Amino acid sequence: MLTSDLLRAGPGVRLADIDPRGTPGVTSRKDPKQWSRVEVSLIGAELASHQEMLYADAKAGSDPRRVLLVLQAMDCGGKDGTVKNVVGQFDPLGLRIVSFGAPTKEELAHPFLWRIKNALPPAGYVGVFNRSHYEDVLIVRVHDLVPRRVWARRYDTINRFEAELVGEGYTLVKVMLHISKEEQRKRLADRLSDPTKHWKYNPGDIDERGYWDDYQEAYQAVLDRCSTEAAPWYVVPADRKWYRNYAVAALLREAFEGLNLKYPKADFDLKNEVKRLEASM
Amino acid sequence: MLTSDLLRAGPGVRLADIDPRGTPGVTSRKDPKQWSRVEVSLIGAELASHQEMLYADAKAGSDPRRVLLVLQAMDCGGKDGTVKNVVGQFDPLGLRIVSFGAPTKEELAHPFLWRIKNALPPAGYVGVFNRSHYEDVLIVRVHDLVPRRVWARRYDTINRFEAELVGEGYTLVKVMLHISKEEQRKRLADRLSDPTKHWKYNPGDIDERGYWDDYQEAYQAVLDRCSTEAAPWYVVPADRKWYRNYAVAALLREAFEGLNLKYPKADFDLKNEVKRLEASM
Repeated sequence: MLTSDLLRAGPGVRLADIDPRGTPGVTSRKDPKQWSRVEVSLIGAELASHQEMLYADAKAGSDPRRVLLVLQAMDCGGKDGTVKNVVGQFDPLGLRIVSFGAPTKEELAHPFLWRIKNALPPAGYVGVFNRSHYEDVLIVRVHDLVPRRVWARRYDTINRFEAELVGEGYTLVKVMLHISKEEQRKRLADRLSDPTKHWKYNPGDIDERGYWDDYQEAYQAVLDRCSTEAAPWYVVPADRKWYRNYAVAALLREAFEGLNLKYPKADFDLKNEVKRLEASM
Repeated sequence: MLTSDLLRAGPGVRLADIDPRGTPGVTSRKDPKQWSRVEVSLIGAELASHQEMLYADAKAGSDPRRVLLVLQAMDCGGKDGTVKNVVGQFDPLGLRIVSFGAPTKEELAHPFLWRIKNALPPAGYVGVFNRSHYEDVLIVRVHDLVPRRVWARRYDTINRFEAELVGEGYTLVKVMLHISKEEQRKRLADRLSDPTKHWKYNPGDIDERGYWDDYQEAYQAVLDRCSTEAAPWYVVPADRKWYRNYAVAALLREAFEGLNLKYPKADFDLKNEVKRLEASM
């Protein structure tokens, strides 16, 4: 069964019913961490090969297509680890990664999609949003950074925006890395106990942790309202990093396979160029 | 001996005297390709570790430092391969790659450093310029895209600009990938004979090849005038891809080692945070 079918947030999906320690589609392994490392690197080679065709086809063939991975998660959910381990399999030349935080004052003064539109990947590229426009219905909703009537309209705006992107040649892979509150506690404790991880720790993370239930509710609303046919959400159980890496890699592979990419044909006279090269000693 | 000492373009350097098939600092190996793959991946792990400290120190400690790799080469010189194989060792999250071509009409209407300044990596990042401001004294000089009196002034402007960057915390690693005319012919022929590489081929490459000697002269002028104490040039013999990858990785490692990076200290009260976390069940 396809990973995308296993993890797609369909109608009636209940986040609270999805086990963050689950491993859908992967039966028990002797050494799952090692298995995943090998698997991700094998899938990674396929991803890099798809990426080259995507890039080639945009460059030489004016193909408008591009792939955009949208990563969302609670703090410590594993976004950075996913970028390092999964996105790191791509050729960096054809990659555009943008991180978004809570909107700044300047960003709040613009329509909420302003900063997003400025950060979209060009044709042929793989884009990664490390957080995204969904922050505008997550942290913004939880903390009332704008009035309710403003954020409440955004779900429809986001759906229209994403449908437009898909119409223009974007393939969106929207992934929520789903961790448990207990796993977040472990990871925060780990950051506190390891001096080489102190820089990742922010006392504000504990404050945000106090809003856990509000965030889960906000994520549920995202799944209810923005997991569309054109751009579905995938919920990846993420307490186990090895499964998370595998699942995101598998979702990307399936997205690329759906594109049926091929290398573009030469737009020059091959024989003539061979002659010209020979003459250019 | 340090790779940077072996490859630095010092006073009186003659590009014509540097063997593009040379392997300075590497004695003969049974299987040099395999040796290089392993070596680059080992150095790569060190690079990723340095990069994390650089990133951490900027994020948590306001350290202004950053590293900028500047790649220049003739067509087929191996810039893209270097990005894939060497730069690909970094965590993509802390990486900023920008490719520059011959300046566009819009870019020509601005001071030549305009597009460069817009593309500089933020503090804590590793930046890569795939071609750079040196195009403005290379292709621009060879094809007189601006009058001689204009490009002739640029060497000094570039030196001042780079000295400023170094003063602001940039470490520049300027690498010229040095290939022979015969190696370029082989690589162009390879692109023509392999349908999966046709997209990389551009008939204009043969036209440019006709200016080989002019380009070598323009590169020589760059080495003569812009290999400064603050920001030296390194000439990497690049006919052998395995050596090129190894040498660029080694140059980057030496640059990072010179920074003596350390993880930043916690700027919060550790005991208090442990208590807060325990209380946040």
